Amino acid sequence: MLGRVRTAVAQLVGGLGPAPGAHACRGPPVGGGFSRPAFLQLTSEELQRADDHAGRAVQSPRESRRRLPWSTGYAEVINAGKSQHNEDQACCEVVVVDRRCSPRCNPVPKECTGEAEGQGRKDLYFHYWGLFDGHAGSGAAVMASKLLHLHICDQLRDLVDILQDSSPPPLCLPGIALELPAERNRAPLAQADVELPSDALPRFHLEKAVSHESLVIGAIENAFKRMDEQIEREQMTRLVAGGCCALAVVYLLGKVYVANAGDSRAIIIRNGEIIPMSREFTPETERQRLQFLGFLRPELLGNEFTHLEFPRRIQHKELGKKMLYRDQNMHGWAYKRIEEDDLKFPLIYGEGKKARVMATIGVTRGLGDHDLKVYNSNIHIKPFLSCVPEVRVYDLTQYEHCPDDVLVLGTDGLWDVTNDREVADVVTEVLMGYEPNDPCRYTMAAYELVVRSRGVLKERGWRLANDKLGSGDDISVFVIPLGGPGNYT
Amino acid sequence: MLGRVRTAVAQLVGGLGPAPGAHACRGPPVGGGFSRPAFLQLTSEELQRADDHAGRAVQSPRESRRRLPWSTGYAEVINAGKSQHNEDQACCEVVVVDRRCSPRCNPVPKECTGEAEGQGRKDLYFHYWGLFDGHAGSGAAVMASKLLHLHICDQLRDLVDILQDSSPPPLCLPGIALELPAERNRAPLAQADVELPSDALPRFHLEKAVSHESLVIGAIENAFKRMDEQIEREQMTRLVAGGCCALAVVYLLGKVYVANAGDSRAIIIRNGEIIPMSREFTPETERQRLQFLGFLRPELLGNEFTHLEFPRRIQHKELGKKMLYRDQNMHGWAYKRIEEDDLKFPLIYGEGKKARVMATIGVTRGLGDHDLKVYNSNIHIKPFLSCVPEVRVYDLTQYEHCPDDVLVLGTDGLWDVTNDREVADVVTEVLMGYEPNDPCRYTMAAYELVVRSRGVLKERGWRLANDKLGSGDDISVFVIPLGGPGNYT
Repeated sequence: MLGRVRTAVAQLVGGLGPAPGAHACRGPPVGGGFSRPAFLQLTSEELQRADDHAGRAVQSPRESRRRLPWSTGYAEVINAGKSQHNEDQACCEVVVVDRRCSPRCNPVPKECTGEAEGQGRKDLYFHYWGLFDGHAGSGAAVMASKLLHLHICDQLRDLVDILQDSSPPPLCLPGIALELPAERNRAPLAQADVELPSDALPRFHLEKAVSHESLVIGAIENAFKRMDEQIEREQMTRLVAGGCCALAVVYLLGKVYVANAGDSRAIIIRNGEIIPMSREFTPETERQRLQFLGFLRPELLGNEFTHLEFPRRIQHKELGKKMLYRDQNMHGWAYKRIEEDDLKFPLIYGEGKKARVMATIGVTRGLGDHDLKVYNSNIHIKPFLSCVPEVRVYDLTQYEHCPDDVLVLGTDGLWDVTNDREVADVVTEVLMGYEPNDPCRYTMAAYELVVRSRGVLKERGWRLANDKLGSGDDISVFVIPLGGPGNYT
Repeated sequence: MLGRVRTAVAQLVGGLGPAPGAHACRGPPVGGGFSRPAFLQLTSEELQRADDHAGRAVQSPRESRRRLPWSTGYAEVINAGKSQHNEDQACCEVVVVDRRCSPRCNPVPKECTGEAEGQGRKDLYFHYWGLFDGHAGSGAAVMASKLLHLHICDQLRDLVDILQDSSPPPLCLPGIALELPAERNRAPLAQADVELPSDALPRFHLEKAVSHESLVIGAIENAFKRMDEQIEREQMTRLVAGGCCALAVVYLLGKVYVANAGDSRAIIIRNGEIIPMSREFTPETERQRLQFLGFLRPELLGNEFTHLEFPRRIQHKELGKKMLYRDQNMHGWAYKRIEEDDLKFPLIYGEGKKARVMATIGVTRGLGDHDLKVYNSNIHIKPFLSCVPEVRVYDLTQYEHCPDDVLVLGTDGLWDVTNDREVADVVTEVLMGYEPNDPCRYTMAAYELVVRSRGVLKERGWRLANDKLGSGDDISVFVIPLGGPGNYT
């Protein structure tokens, strides 16, 4: 399998590099008609069935077809009609990272001959899983599901040898010679010190230690930025609509990196214990970052919004009264006299799942959304959204995992109607029903999670076992074994 | 004692209120000569001894004089010569909060008659402890130690009845009538929703619940802001120099609020277990906030600094090579081609205790510093500093505390040479040597902590028991019993 993916990567990465003028991606066509993850290998008839908002059949990889790496389990279901198609997308791949061949990066051209392995320089590859929850169209989610792992690959290309060398990463790498301007006079180099005793004046020869792990985190962060820039370029030509939350997992050299930008969630279930591997980015969890930006750049609020938070809308007749408020640097609340400016709509408004940025969007990190504006206005939302994920690291080698230890990834369609404990209990229950070496057990666990959070169609809509409303959203779930027999291949 | 403090507060708070033009504080004179905390009640001879940078005698409240509330223990020592005087200051008080009497706040004037208590409306008071670690002069620390608790008192004056009423706080309070401008047309009220299914459109009649606790947090946060503004006004008249870290504890209605702005630290030791009650605010812990500001407001960097972080200084001859860097939205590191702009000095530079903002200051929150500039330049540091504390809450009623359970507050002079566990062990060891009802045991614990972190003067300077260098900084420590016999009086 590795060979196949390596070829695909070699074709694609050329178009994704940072070379100037590389605006078009030469990857598979994106946009266009309805599509589901390639690994599902759906026939056109099956694809049609997957697009049925009424029947909402749960989709999983067929046992008779290609098995996912690590015997990963997967299941998904379409929403109950909130959008034209399923806006979730998914990806699962093994990606080989080729060393960058450009002479400006690697001064030794023979590294490009393909003989590298034979000369004791090992190949680098990573396992990859991604979930993309689209909104306002599925274009950004489709594009990210097809390309984000290639951007990660591209960011890792300078690091192939560095990451496999046990010595600390070099702080500086050779580059191409540039014409050097005249040296500048740098007055602030000799500084007064107001804080420390005289024996502790700043030492300007200090070097900061940088770990291999933090290079991988930096590569993933920058891959998300490059992906977002590529979506922006495509959106300008109107081929890609909307935005998406992105949850990506990279397994590289013994460590699992979980990168989250949005409100999807990842948890590890280990020996029945739950280890959170992500947090959600919403107007509530990122309130202070957004308010700080609105405070520093009031022009982004378009004279329609105030960066202050109020516990409810203020009525015009309340001018002059005192209302509770929170400023960007506050965690507590205080009263302030209501002024004309406070009648503007709050930048952050609503509570929990109902909280919105500028009354428009309920997630504050993700890819795309470059064209998103406040309804009936020319106010852009994108400056308040971040495309940078939070990356958490889990060292697989620090613990001996059993076949029931798994990493679960789910879009908010799953987590809106269930919680970590319930998910862990369902997974454990399903896995116990199968032999530890039965590779289909992880897909059965994912399937069960999707069925239980979708519920059953009754007269009063989709209902859970407890008769509460089931999730009407798209639901997508990966169940990734951490110590099963199919691992690390 | 309450009566005495109430009178003092009544005199002082008048000058601290938010009334326009109230620029001067009518509190005790600040600035001027060397001073130590009032509660030490030092004679002029003792004051002179406390100012001896060579002898470094440890100061504590004398048992024969007034005892601190809750039998609080305290000890301090001056630095080994890094500044002219001890730049640490401390305060310990019980403060009575009078209702605000202005008709613009309380529409019922009879609340000002002083008969409120007799009518079933209870007085509100709080216990207060503060540590202030000054830098670049002791002026700000002295001023804050004398006035911060009065600003907290002032912020609580609107809340006297609200906090003692078990029903949820009102979101809106009456105010004075203002002339109302014509109602504005608010287009964004009807918004499109790109994220949630149609049954979950934003509900504009939502009300957010606000807790009593968050009102106290908001009051403390705003008190720090008012204190900082007052220092700014005084600094303009050149009476108050420098800035200070501030660690303040408020005990109010059964809860302990620990507010920290700077690198002092508070921990609770309960049944031998350590509960951190603060975190330090330094260029390292606040790197992303500072870089984000430098990124959004590059003019604050004065064309001398770059908001990017590098693991070491870049040399001019390295232009064109690739160097590791971190941007404001990154946790990981990546390589970038070195450009002319990257030769500027990094906004954040150095590691651990050596890290500095603009090569100048090692703490990123505190009071004062309005006049602080980068050496030999006109670049102001203050925009990068925050005066807002992080407030943590500990509910004293949720646990039955024994006489050995304490809250320890210390300036960085303590924590630089010791850690939480060592401090807890010393405290436990000292307390065990005294009867549980002996009120002097807490001061003995504070005394021992200061002595052990100062060390003993040897030929090669102040040395700890393990022969490492002792703390040459000012050291100030409170040991506050949470369940001792002297409590809650």
